[in-house]
Amino acid sequence: MAITSEQDKKVRTADKAAISVLNHDSSGVETAFDRYLKMQPQCNFGRTGVCCRICLQGPCRISKKADKGICGAHAYTIVARNLIRAITAGASAHGDHGRHIVHTVMEMLKEKAPAYSIEDPQKLYRVADRLGIAREGKNDRELLAEVAALALEDFIKDSTDPCRWLESTVVEERMQKLEECNISPRSIHTTIAETMAQTHMGMDADPVNLIFQGLKMALCDYVGMHIATDLSDILFGTPKPVTTEANFGIMEEDTVNIALHGHNPLLSEMIVRVARQMSAEAEAAGARAIKCMGICCTGNEVLMRQGVPVLTNFLSQELPMMTGALDAMVVDVQCIMPGIKAVSECFNTRIVTTMPNAKIPGAYHVAFAEEEAEAKAREIIGLAIDAFKERKGKVVSIPQIKHKVTAGFSMEALDDLLGAVSPDQPFKALTDAIDSGQLRGVVLLAGCNNLRVLQDHSHNEIIRELARNDVFMVITGCAAGSAAKMGLMNDEAVEKYAGEGLKAFIHKLNEANKDKLEGNKLPLLFHMGSCVDNSRAYDLVTVLARQWGIDSPKVPFVASAPEAMSEKAVSIGSWFVALGIPTHVGVVPEVTGSSLVNGIALQIAEDVYGGYFIWEEDPVKAAQKILKALNERTWKLKLHRQMAEKYDTALSKSY
Amino acid sequence: MAITSEQDKKVRTADKAAISVLNHDSSGVETAFDRYLKMQPQCNFGRTGVCCRICLQGPCRISKKADKGICGAHAYTIVARNLIRAITAGASAHGDHGRHIVHTVMEMLKEKAPAYSIEDPQKLYRVADRLGIAREGKNDRELLAEVAALALEDFIKDSTDPCRWLESTVVEERMQKLEECNISPRSIHTTIAETMAQTHMGMDADPVNLIFQGLKMALCDYVGMHIATDLSDILFGTPKPVTTEANFGIMEEDTVNIALHGHNPLLSEMIVRVARQMSAEAEAAGARAIKCMGICCTGNEVLMRQGVPVLTNFLSQELPMMTGALDAMVVDVQCIMPGIKAVSECFNTRIVTTMPNAKIPGAYHVAFAEEEAEAKAREIIGLAIDAFKERKGKVVSIPQIKHKVTAGFSMEALDDLLGAVSPDQPFKALTDAIDSGQLRGVVLLAGCNNLRVLQDHSHNEIIRELARNDVFMVITGCAAGSAAKMGLMNDEAVEKYAGEGLKAFIHKLNEANKDKLEGNKLPLLFHMGSCVDNSRAYDLVTVLARQWGIDSPKVPFVASAPEAMSEKAVSIGSWFVALGIPTHVGVVPEVTGSSLVNGIALQIAEDVYGGYFIWEEDPVKAAQKILKALNERTWKLKLHRQMAEKYDTALSKSY
Repeated sequence: MAITSEQDKKVRTADKAAISVLNHDSSGVETAFDRYLKMQPQCNFGRTGVCCRICLQGPCRISKKADKGICGAHAYTIVARNLIRAITAGASAHGDHGRHIVHTVMEMLKEKAPAYSIEDPQKLYRVADRLGIAREGKNDRELLAEVAALALEDFIKDSTDPCRWLESTVVEERMQKLEECNISPRSIHTTIAETMAQTHMGMDADPVNLIFQGLKMALCDYVGMHIATDLSDILFGTPKPVTTEANFGIMEEDTVNIALHGHNPLLSEMIVRVARQMSAEAEAAGARAIKCMGICCTGNEVLMRQGVPVLTNFLSQELPMMTGALDAMVVDVQCIMPGIKAVSECFNTRIVTTMPNAKIPGAYHVAFAEEEAEAKAREIIGLAIDAFKERKGKVVSIPQIKHKVTAGFSMEALDDLLGAVSPDQPFKALTDAIDSGQLRGVVLLAGCNNLRVLQDHSHNEIIRELARNDVFMVITGCAAGSAAKMGLMNDEAVEKYAGEGLKAFIHKLNEANKDKLEGNKLPLLFHMGSCVDNSRAYDLVTVLARQWGIDSPKVPFVASAPEAMSEKAVSIGSWFVALGIPTHVGVVPEVTGSSLVNGIALQIAEDVYGGYFIWEEDPVKAAQKILKALNERTWKLKLHRQMAEKYDTALSKSY
Repeated sequence: MAITSEQDKKVRTADKAAISVLNHDSSGVETAFDRYLKMQPQCNFGRTGVCCRICLQGPCRISKKADKGICGAHAYTIVARNLIRAITAGASAHGDHGRHIVHTVMEMLKEKAPAYSIEDPQKLYRVADRLGIAREGKNDRELLAEVAALALEDFIKDSTDPCRWLESTVVEERMQKLEECNISPRSIHTTIAETMAQTHMGMDADPVNLIFQGLKMALCDYVGMHIATDLSDILFGTPKPVTTEANFGIMEEDTVNIALHGHNPLLSEMIVRVARQMSAEAEAAGARAIKCMGICCTGNEVLMRQGVPVLTNFLSQELPMMTGALDAMVVDVQCIMPGIKAVSECFNTRIVTTMPNAKIPGAYHVAFAEEEAEAKAREIIGLAIDAFKERKGKVVSIPQIKHKVTAGFSMEALDDLLGAVSPDQPFKALTDAIDSGQLRGVVLLAGCNNLRVLQDHSHNEIIRELARNDVFMVITGCAAGSAAKMGLMNDEAVEKYAGEGLKAFIHKLNEANKDKLEGNKLPLLFHMGSCVDNSRAYDLVTVLARQWGIDSPKVPFVASAPEAMSEKAVSIGSWFVALGIPTHVGVVPEVTGSSLVNGIALQIAEDVYGGYFIWEEDPVKAAQKILKALNERTWKLKLHRQMAEKYDTALSKSY
């Protein structure tokens, strides 16, 4: 449902709070919704991937008249190069996030980052065990030093040994496949350098070779993400179920309202912590309290670990300011629209950039530094309190829309919940439910918002359709933001939307975990974290594969990014495919200009890796295709189980 | 002089041999010259840098109607991001080349690459000394192992210590400047990863911050290039003056003609060596001999060290096949037009790709492997001999155009030549000639061909104009290919084109080096090597700065890339600027869509780093601007020398 005309302005988002703000705004301020309309029509050469700007002779655009670039590059070369550069940028972004956390851990171990500590030693032990680090005779700091050193190795090493975070988190057969296909990376940084070199003018013209390198690159994305998640859990705690609220209605007129936006928990955790200590300052300024709230994946990070409410997700990031009630928006890295600065000028919000590699001209910049993280947090909150003082007496208009949200479902949390049903092998509770037909399989909802489609609509539709069809859903990133805002991430949604099987399964979990949940009930879908936490979702694939004793392409698991937008999403989708998972994308990436590359994505990938892409912009059709992919896998699982029973052999990994 | 109409097809290159081939061809085969015309008109959004394809909401194109991207990014952000991604790709390409040689050295040291050896221990000692490696008690292999280990560190290290190849090759004041401006890189790979992350959607919106990161990236390009050159010299020998010929006339009907194309000496050196051993096989096939010849920078590599004649440069790479006389084109990495494959199909040429990251569908692929380099070279030459057999009896039409070429001017070779005039301080011969006004300064001619301008024309015009104005010229890359093909790289050109001062200076060098030159005379310009060898040209800046006792932005040295084409060229130009050198580019890069970014390149860069860009497509005007930049520096040098004399103080670094 693309937005193409002025008429569509009224229905450009499915988020009622966003609509309310847009409809009530009289400032005339420009938002992404307006800029999207102004940008129409968009260039179809770029849109289909056949515009090459890799040398200064270009741009070359493939058409009937000019069917090759000036250098002779075919559309397949151009499309493949553009695609894998996007994967490279995505992997670099996640890697940067992960490396930042590795560096913080190292600073902490050198006593240079006093605000940080090992919050979750149990996670440290699990990670160390997984990496094969002997724990005996080592204290936690020594152990963490070894973990961090191995993590850094996965970033920089030059050897051809497998990356430790890849080898130790996928099933053995998968690792063999990656080695066979020569896409097991040396390291994150080396592969980034390799890929950028391979796509230079006059380098690789072979699309298959390029795409394989792109998959190698995508696996580095996975490694960087997994490292980020593991170390974040160690530093800030592994998420446990938590209940809070989402959408603009969480803002209050009489609180200092601070939005935490971006992707990295390093600073936002400190702000949440320090905000809890600064109530006196807030009260002195006439505020009832300081209220932190999240946007995008920084929001997910502090939601998962601190129960911070969700303000909004990617596409509507500019709108909370337009209520007049947002005092500060603190941003770290990634997916921060530069447009927020212009909007803030019309209202009362302090935009505070914090990272050396993500500045916005004219914004406040408080340079984050590990060694004085709390002082920096204090400085930022001070700016918000100043803004609150200026705001007093001015009109604010907050749409009274908010929904209950239950989040915090790390693998550890799922293990705990499922363990209440199946204590010895917790995830057997899930495989049994799939084997019995109670559940149709597992789907990850992930990814962003993208103005090519109506904001949050595809997420919403696909979730309801899958729920109705008894799919167990995990969710991350701005997809999670969407579900939270729309009221889908709570127990009421189970009753409203879940099919009988899913409802029964969740009810059973509720029942078994009654004491632990302390009166709360489980939601319709299980929020695993920020987009960097998609590694948690793949850990679920690995656990299920091990539970069934099969390779990952046989697990009835599908990933879906209904509103994919960023290069990170391209990268995540690519590693899901390389790791054996059908992956739906609701905004067709820029590959359709080459039927060959498109064919690799949609079909050849499956022949080689078992995973493949599904492009489908219509959410209802997308849900059908996702269900079809699940059915195919559950059917095969069942068939082989029956055969194994008939011939009295174990269901082996090699079937 | 852009080519825009069919009419222009007859004058699309200034290379007479190329014109002859194009005019006589009746095959109708399509070349880059045709494809360029078909590609007109080209997109001006891309051309000016204001097309953003960094997220899947794009492409966003900045115009009056849509003055910001959908995310709110201004033109300055979009242009800066695109630019520094180009620098990143260029640095990655050079880095890949350098790392490949580091790996080969390491394989050799493990006795796994028997064809390679330390050809030039003296170079090894010089490099070790420069890096501060103690040589005592170590044999050559041990020393090389230490050098290679430090080289690998400059690629991968995570520490903030300066890169060794940067710190040890620039003057102290320059290193201080880079540190002050926070653009001294951690390492090549880390900076590539950083830059790709910093340009992700919703990351940095600040153009100055982005451009500074781009300069940091460009310095990594310099590091990778310098490592490549140093190690290549150690493995294959440091170039010394050598005389041969250039252009299509070097092909002979009755020889097995093998073109070596690309950038890396690792395989091409082996092919040249093995070709000399395979004359019996060639004779058995009815050929008089095997003749190797070079295209692009692989051509420069084997010209500089082995005296292999020059076939052609970048833009005309497809044309030698159209004579019917080229039996094989062996390609390694970079600047290889995929178009060569289609042309080869119409003629008799075997296209042989050799590297895992640079394949062309349908071409022969002989996978290069260090451990069997000679066997691979033999296999490739076998393919060429097969082609020769098939060619016998068929009509060939070779334009009888060729020129004498004298090349091989490494810094060591220049040191040697100048030392004949000024034995104690060889480069004082050059600084004295500039101080006295005999020479106007030093210019590096570098870079590619680009169909936006008439092939070789700008090189040719600028060289002549600078020669007439007594500029001492060094030259690299396809600029050198151009000069060689056009008859400018020999002693006859000195007599024809040099002004009185330059002529007298070269004559004096000839006289002082009479015995060494063995009857040969020095050329009009001094060929320092392939484009990766531009580090040699910067070594010349450093030596001159040290000779004068000044920082590099005071050295009367200008770099010029009259026909820049590749991302490598963008990267090289950027480090020249960061390292204090005015840099002319004859094809305006994709930055003019942001007056802010353009202003940084043309002006702000000078305020901060002393170097700056000069965009000028007209070669005569370009020469004037280059001369003006030289004059400004020589004038300042003179003024300060006079003041130093007057006040009886030494000409200090701090003036």
